[in-house]
Amino acid sequence: MEWKNQFEDYINIVNGKLEQYFNMPIDKNNSLIEAMKYSIFAGGKRIRPVLALASYQLFANNLEEVLPYACALEMIHTYSLIHDDLPAMDNDDYRRGKPTNHKVHGEGIAILAGDGLLNYSFEVMLADALNRENPKPFIHSINEISKAAGIHGMIGGQTVDLQSEGKVIDADTLDYIHKNKTAALITAPLKIGAIIAKASEEDIENMEYVGKQLGLAFQIKDDILDIIGDQEKLGKPVGSDEDNKKSTYPAIHGLDFSINRVQELTNSIYDILSKYNEKSYFLQNLSQYLVDRES
Amino acid sequence: MEWKNQFEDYINIVNGKLEQYFNMPIDKNNSLIEAMKYSIFAGGKRIRPVLALASYQLFANNLEEVLPYACALEMIHTYSLIHDDLPAMDNDDYRRGKPTNHKVHGEGIAILAGDGLLNYSFEVMLADALNRENPKPFIHSINEISKAAGIHGMIGGQTVDLQSEGKVIDADTLDYIHKNKTAALITAPLKIGAIIAKASEEDIENMEYVGKQLGLAFQIKDDILDIIGDQEKLGKPVGSDEDNKKSTYPAIHGLDFSINRVQELTNSIYDILSKYNEKSYFLQNLSQYLVDRES
Repeated sequence: MEWKNQFEDYINIVNGKLEQYFNMPIDKNNSLIEAMKYSIFAGGKRIRPVLALASYQLFANNLEEVLPYACALEMIHTYSLIHDDLPAMDNDDYRRGKPTNHKVHGEGIAILAGDGLLNYSFEVMLADALNRENPKPFIHSINEISKAAGIHGMIGGQTVDLQSEGKVIDADTLDYIHKNKTAALITAPLKIGAIIAKASEEDIENMEYVGKQLGLAFQIKDDILDIIGDQEKLGKPVGSDEDNKKSTYPAIHGLDFSINRVQELTNSIYDILSKYNEKSYFLQNLSQYLVDRES
Repeated sequence: MEWKNQFEDYINIVNGKLEQYFNMPIDKNNSLIEAMKYSIFAGGKRIRPVLALASYQLFANNLEEVLPYACALEMIHTYSLIHDDLPAMDNDDYRRGKPTNHKVHGEGIAILAGDGLLNYSFEVMLADALNRENPKPFIHSINEISKAAGIHGMIGGQTVDLQSEGKVIDADTLDYIHKNKTAALITAPLKIGAIIAKASEEDIENMEYVGKQLGLAFQIKDDILDIIGDQEKLGKPVGSDEDNKKSTYPAIHGLDFSINRVQELTNSIYDILSKYNEKSYFLQNLSQYLVDRES
């Protein structure tokens, strides 16, 4: 399948750039760098950076422009997983089939590795923006990413998620968690890809819309997988959300409704993407892949 | 004393702006905002933002320009204290005479409040830079701040500090910790104050030099105070560093040498600042105050 080759290409581009960013001289802080690398190169699917690249390529062709921001998004995603896995948070021992960061590097270093990744993501983006002749779209993008990752975005979602553990929550609260904890950092790459490509306001809004729908579909699928998925494919125990007494979309709305909702969201994504003709085949296929996945 | 009035004025300006930044609508993430506010308004001396304001005023007069960056530095400093106090790090129960963030809000929320403050500091700076007609000095400053706070700055220093607990470390390692854990975030405000004021390269370098010397003097003084300070004035048990078996400057170099070193560093600060005549009286006085302090 052609789109899967494109996916591989994008992943390789991202991984190559990440290798560059983490190819640092060994210093007294070596254990910190090692802990950061442990999670960054732990087999993540690079969905967020790939979304940024694919969105950018709908409107422009100089991929190098968007690459630092794509990599920064992966760093932010990775830091959020490290902190989320900590004993004081989700207390997870495994992630992608490997021991979590704090299990290998200890809690203190894991906290600092998360801090380091968040901070480094901004270092990387700012160093790039500083060298641009017209820095406006780049600052605009860093600003969007900072908001998506922040207290009214991802961190806000993590907070409400943490506080909802062991509690029955309402649909409104679950919606807040999904929109902020997950969808915000799926929306940001699609949006900043368009911003950096200097797309029109309408195109930027379209990409933002696709991101919101896809982020929600992705998270509901995650919840569904936790119920019906296969332990080996997931790399974490099935039903772990249930064990932690976490409210999930199927728990609140039922499994059938959840499956239908994912399809509805996917359709609304197609409606927008189809406006961009064959250029958007990759994003259409990737969206389908993300909602069809079994792990 | 006139300079102390100036100090109060600066502190009030910073606190006023911080109040604005944390005057947010109540949302589902309210407990996160409350935890962030708890530490931001816990009685910090606002040294870092005041240094940024004072450095700026050596070269320009429109304080509003530097204020968002001054406040962002305080947010970064505060997040580092929250994470540093966590059980997996220094495991401190008190900070400035009050229970530490995780003692009040729980470990999970404390981790997220730290993440939130770091992220929010960038949100605040980027939102400002985005609105500037000539954003270059502002992006330059955010870049400097991100490096000072990062894995080759403050977070690097925290890492080596954490790994040195309970160990006898050499002078070189202690130097790394002091330069990165503390001095980097004392240097950054002095440097970015000059950058945002569009000072000359030489002036920016002078401010950076003053920052490095002051940061080191400040940290050595901290180590000295832990040995000879008064518990009530410090708000934490005297000798707590010793209890944690942390290597300090006096432990490695002796108390007399340490006291002399602080004086030497202070003299080198005066040598530079005196070039700026009466304009630099405030910074001279503040430097003296920081090395003379008893808590």
